[in-house]
Amino acid sequence: MSEKLNQLKEILGEVSDINHAASVLGWDQQVNMPRGGAEARGQHLATLGKIAHQKATSDEVGKLLADLKQEFAGSDSDDAALVRVAARDFDKATRLPSEFVAEQAVVTTASFEAWAEAKKKSDFSIFLPHLEKVMGLMHKYVSYFPPADHPYDILLDDYEPGMKTIEVKDIFNKVRPQQVKLIKAIRESKQVKADFLHKKYAEKKVWDFSEVIISKFGYDFSRGRQDKAAHPFETSFSVNDVRITNRYKAENPLETLFSGMHEAGHAMYEQGVNPLYDRTPLANGVSSAVHESQSRMWENLVGRSLPFWEYFFPELKKMFPSQLDGLSAKTFYKAVNKVEPSLIRVEADEATYNLHIMLRLELEIGMLDGSIALKDLPEIWNSKMREYVGITPPDDAHGVLQDIHWSWALFGYFPTYALGNLVSAQLWERINKDIRGLDDQIRKGQFDSLLNWLREKVHVYGRKHDPQDLIQKVTGSKIDSAPYVRYLTKKYNDIYGL
Amino acid sequence: MSEKLNQLKEILGEVSDINHAASVLGWDQQVNMPRGGAEARGQHLATLGKIAHQKATSDEVGKLLADLKQEFAGSDSDDAALVRVAARDFDKATRLPSEFVAEQAVVTTASFEAWAEAKKKSDFSIFLPHLEKVMGLMHKYVSYFPPADHPYDILLDDYEPGMKTIEVKDIFNKVRPQQVKLIKAIRESKQVKADFLHKKYAEKKVWDFSEVIISKFGYDFSRGRQDKAAHPFETSFSVNDVRITNRYKAENPLETLFSGMHEAGHAMYEQGVNPLYDRTPLANGVSSAVHESQSRMWENLVGRSLPFWEYFFPELKKMFPSQLDGLSAKTFYKAVNKVEPSLIRVEADEATYNLHIMLRLELEIGMLDGSIALKDLPEIWNSKMREYVGITPPDDAHGVLQDIHWSWALFGYFPTYALGNLVSAQLWERINKDIRGLDDQIRKGQFDSLLNWLREKVHVYGRKHDPQDLIQKVTGSKIDSAPYVRYLTKKYNDIYGL
Repeated sequence: MSEKLNQLKEILGEVSDINHAASVLGWDQQVNMPRGGAEARGQHLATLGKIAHQKATSDEVGKLLADLKQEFAGSDSDDAALVRVAARDFDKATRLPSEFVAEQAVVTTASFEAWAEAKKKSDFSIFLPHLEKVMGLMHKYVSYFPPADHPYDILLDDYEPGMKTIEVKDIFNKVRPQQVKLIKAIRESKQVKADFLHKKYAEKKVWDFSEVIISKFGYDFSRGRQDKAAHPFETSFSVNDVRITNRYKAENPLETLFSGMHEAGHAMYEQGVNPLYDRTPLANGVSSAVHESQSRMWENLVGRSLPFWEYFFPELKKMFPSQLDGLSAKTFYKAVNKVEPSLIRVEADEATYNLHIMLRLELEIGMLDGSIALKDLPEIWNSKMREYVGITPPDDAHGVLQDIHWSWALFGYFPTYALGNLVSAQLWERINKDIRGLDDQIRKGQFDSLLNWLREKVHVYGRKHDPQDLIQKVTGSKIDSAPYVRYLTKKYNDIYGL
Repeated sequence: MSEKLNQLKEILGEVSDINHAASVLGWDQQVNMPRGGAEARGQHLATLGKIAHQKATSDEVGKLLADLKQEFAGSDSDDAALVRVAARDFDKATRLPSEFVAEQAVVTTASFEAWAEAKKKSDFSIFLPHLEKVMGLMHKYVSYFPPADHPYDILLDDYEPGMKTIEVKDIFNKVRPQQVKLIKAIRESKQVKADFLHKKYAEKKVWDFSEVIISKFGYDFSRGRQDKAAHPFETSFSVNDVRITNRYKAENPLETLFSGMHEAGHAMYEQGVNPLYDRTPLANGVSSAVHESQSRMWENLVGRSLPFWEYFFPELKKMFPSQLDGLSAKTFYKAVNKVEPSLIRVEADEATYNLHIMLRLELEIGMLDGSIALKDLPEIWNSKMREYVGITPPDDAHGVLQDIHWSWALFGYFPTYALGNLVSAQLWERINKDIRGLDDQIRKGQFDSLLNWLREKVHVYGRKHDPQDLIQKVTGSKIDSAPYVRYLTKKYNDIYGL
């Protein structure tokens, strides 16, 4: 093996170690840290971040990459992919002047605090001046990159490498009218019963049941763990230590089961990456959308399916006999799929979720190209909510102020949530061609051929292939909305008798 | 403030951040990490250790220190202490060639594994060749330092800065005959009843009670937490995040209370260091013996005292009425002070503990100066155990193989355990002169004037003063064994009616 490649791997291995150490600190911060520890923890993370950045953007790395790009040009080996991905990361990391990175930290810290206050008081005017500064950052950010077809392409590329704004818009334009039509039809149908989901279900039992489910799925607890945190998330410290968090809310106790499946979906992806990629830029999932396709598949296509509950409902009923007395698996299945157009994205059902995202994408593009004045955001938000979802937010806390993303300068991320839904259904159609009788397997609580398929076709590759190439390779086409529409239509026809 | 001092603080602040990050990783490894995570975690820690070492030993730091030592010569300010302590750390860290550090890692990893196997099979011959290599390392280590009065001084200095072997021997020679005499007298007395300590006490309740006790002591849970781990320990990530671990053993359930007090004693020391020292070499306790004086004080001088149990026993009895039925606080107090010469150091009572340490010190000195052949260790161990403690180990697992320390090349550490006991009693005599009616306060569950005294006289200084200077400053003399002997004699006269 090339001596230069070894040198590059050694340096990037150390960068990976430092970043993983920072991830452990971040996990601890959410899961364990006493409140007194916050200030020092911020300092620890700042120092680790600075050192990792210095190492990753050193002239030495730049020179090694320049030579190696030539050496590996035209090859499709793992090493060639490593060099290509590392070069892309290096290019992005070196474009940002350190003053910009420092300014961003200052602006977003203040902006996050203002957003939290604004949301609490439901007063957009508190957030507005900070959002203006954040948008200033985003324009600056875009200016460090070569001009793209659309400036939003540059933001999107950080989460969905290679994806273009025009592609996303095309996809969303196809799917939106169909989802809007679907929820109208559902609203006019006989509603399903779901009140029993909001009875009292003891926390410990729900938690244990969520671990029964994800163990069955194949989430490997010898290489992971599930802890309580304010927000469910997945984080990985190596292919052999991939952890998830979850929460329990008394007003919606069984949500724990679905967020457990969702985060386990992310985690099984990370646990399935080729272990040879550990400590290299090829480790980890390839993009936000592909990651989300895995979490949404386990949560929705598996976890909200009838076969799944035909297997698990009797067990759940044994655990909660009084709460579920007299109910069938089918009734339970319908309840966990109840469509209820709602104000809050994170509580949205499968039929409406993407519409929340589309609204955000349109706003983000408008904010970036200047066609939307920031002060008009609340009004535009509310009118689009009326148009797409059919309801109007009573205040900004339940409208334009609901998400943390903009306060953190996370622009370009939202669309990947909806793309993930589309990809999950696209993969699902392929899977059901490749695995005969998958429904029957699920009905017996067997998930190994499903997980093995995902491992072999998706997980193992880590970041080796670009996301759209990977999807094309596996399903025969790039991201396509048709399978998701077919999936939703079939499911809700069944449930609501449309 | 001097520009150079600022530069030094900036670099050492980063070193401190990296080391604290490594401590978080170490804590997680003991408390949470799934077993799959071990290999990557070793790699993360190796990288952080390497970077911290490179930063701490850079030429830049060396030059800054050389200039600053001149600038601050003769001053007793905090900054002068910082420069002095930093220079000492720098001197030690730069003496070791990196090949030595690498060799040590390899030798001790293998030696630890061999020791674990040897202990399991109770076969010293498995460990012997590795111990020979470890001793080779120790000789090399000593050779990197200027000649001392005794080579063991160099090892001791890493844990007890400034302390000399001859001083420790003198102290131990004074205390040994008196402790040997004491345990003989106890053995010939009427034994105390303690069988009720080994009944069944529910884990959750014992754990909660341990947190009631240490909260009362003043351990600040908003800047710390207690978790389960295989071994109790204390670790700090900043003055505002100092954590302890504990365990529960069914055969000795109430031990949890005492190890909780012990570790909280360490932790309150770290929580009490001047917050202005955070991110500098002055943060943390000053030496192993002074640290141990704090843990042993809360565990023994407070936690095994009659006034303590006069306050807490009624509460404990309320929690465990059947287990403690018909018992008085005095009976319970006697039971938790029962003297039972035993084979295992970590299970030893206050009367015998130091004897275990003295044995180890004599062996370590003999191993280092060559007067003891390693192959003869088991026999020498057993004969000294007979002489000091009055019992003979049945096998090497319960004798020479019981401690992990030698396998990890931790030579020079053991004596600080016994010195800590002595210092705890020495401080205690001073405290009881300064705080009128301390026993009465303890009898009422009031520990604030005790903790405030320790904070003000000991904790706040961190590493500012050398340990013997600190002890002299506070108690009027250097480490002195007389108070400990007086303490033990009085206590056991009372319990055993000697």
